[in-house]
Amino acid sequence: MVKNNHFKDNRRQLDRLLRSAPLPADGSRMAELIGYAHTLTRLENTVVVISDMQRGESRIIAGGFGVTLGLTGYDSEDSIWEQRILELMLPEERENKFIAELRFFHFVRHLPKHRKSDYYLECILRFILEDGSNINVMHKMYYVYDDENENVMYAVCQYSPIVSDLKCKSRCVNSLTGETIDLASTDNDGILSGRECRVLSLINDGMKSAEIAERLHISIHTVSRHRQEILSKLKVRNSIEACRLAMVMGLISQ
Amino acid sequence: MVKNNHFKDNRRQLDRLLRSAPLPADGSRMAELIGYAHTLTRLENTVVVISDMQRGESRIIAGGFGVTLGLTGYDSEDSIWEQRILELMLPEERENKFIAELRFFHFVRHLPKHRKSDYYLECILRFILEDGSNINVMHKMYYVYDDENENVMYAVCQYSPIVSDLKCKSRCVNSLTGETIDLASTDNDGILSGRECRVLSLINDGMKSAEIAERLHISIHTVSRHRQEILSKLKVRNSIEACRLAMVMGLISQ
Repeated sequence: MVKNNHFKDNRRQLDRLLRSAPLPADGSRMAELIGYAHTLTRLENTVVVISDMQRGESRIIAGGFGVTLGLTGYDSEDSIWEQRILELMLPEERENKFIAELRFFHFVRHLPKHRKSDYYLECILRFILEDGSNINVMHKMYYVYDDENENVMYAVCQYSPIVSDLKCKSRCVNSLTGETIDLASTDNDGILSGRECRVLSLINDGMKSAEIAERLHISIHTVSRHRQEILSKLKVRNSIEACRLAMVMGLISQ
Repeated sequence: MVKNNHFKDNRRQLDRLLRSAPLPADGSRMAELIGYAHTLTRLENTVVVISDMQRGESRIIAGGFGVTLGLTGYDSEDSIWEQRILELMLPEERENKFIAELRFFHFVRHLPKHRKSDYYLECILRFILEDGSNINVMHKMYYVYDDENENVMYAVCQYSPIVSDLKCKSRCVNSLTGETIDLASTDNDGILSGRECRVLSLINDGMKSAEIAERLHISIHTVSRHRQEILSKLKVRNSIEACRLAMVMGLISQ
């Protein structure tokens, strides 16, 4: 059975999701975000990562809290992932971060365009410091969309000390109302329908389409349609990837 | 007896404290902060106020949350106080805001220069909406210092919905460590010494210097020295102002 620990797969997964759309390069927006990050680091000591989805690169602006994390003199990376920051986390925390970001991505992609920018992600992540001790870090992530609100152009991540307890590992915040949604408890229906989850569960159990059709009293054509819909919704290439992703996202059980 | 409700006096008080030092005009810093505010309002829907202490003016950049508060189309004011926003609060909440800011001002002014920028203020303030309903708003305030870290050049205020409960009305946050200090419980000694509080209490009771000297078994010269020190520490012009300020700050009881 596929084990529930596929850091690299998840990363490629989200990478593909986020980088899927071709976007025009826009230097002025990046410059604006970098200016924002510099001011924010001065006001709030935060570590800010700006990921350019189109160019596939990240800029890291480390405020005073970066010294605590051991991030001094850190600047940029040729990846939308802030590799050096990820390496400061325990492996299961990297996994948690990706699952949270996947859930968030799926949460906002179902929102109407004009509502997408109303939400940001908050996670608590455990970091390992140089001396071997652990520290809980507040991770906030914001998507910056293109003018048509179709594609994520940039992701802005912040890392700062925990000031207020979240009472959960990750949540979606509505910045207009302050309402929060515990991402761990988000309804699976938001991503796959109940029937799609059932079909994927049976695929995960090793059943072929004909067997699934018989078990669920549906036509093999309908099973095929569900399969295609699942791949499309999860933006994966095949059933194995779909099963892995669905498991780490808690859509199906192992 | 002086009543504990001196909104205008407190405002003038803090105004004088903040605006006391002559500073060179620096358009580029203001432009940087305005750029920051615009990006922040887009990422987080926040209402941002940037107050220029030297020029005595404020710029208000209202993100989506401004619509909830009724602040659309709002731009600038010829005061370091965001009058229109203050008018949206209940009178006792305006008082709370000023007391919190006074306490914060006194808290940071006792810190070593290189530590001042490590702190910001968080308050919960109750606003009245147009339909008469009330809403709790998170107010965050950051000071921007000159290069010598001596004077507050700008104050950056943010108003946003409450996401996490503070468990207190106002607190100081150390942005390097996440540690918080409940401002309502801050030690009076940070502002006035115990002896100064005692002297001011007796002044507030209507005693003259000679009577205070006799009561405390000190010389009248020492009482005068305490009086001068109190006026200097509270940055007020006379004993009546000192008593009012000390009462609203809870340094002496009524």
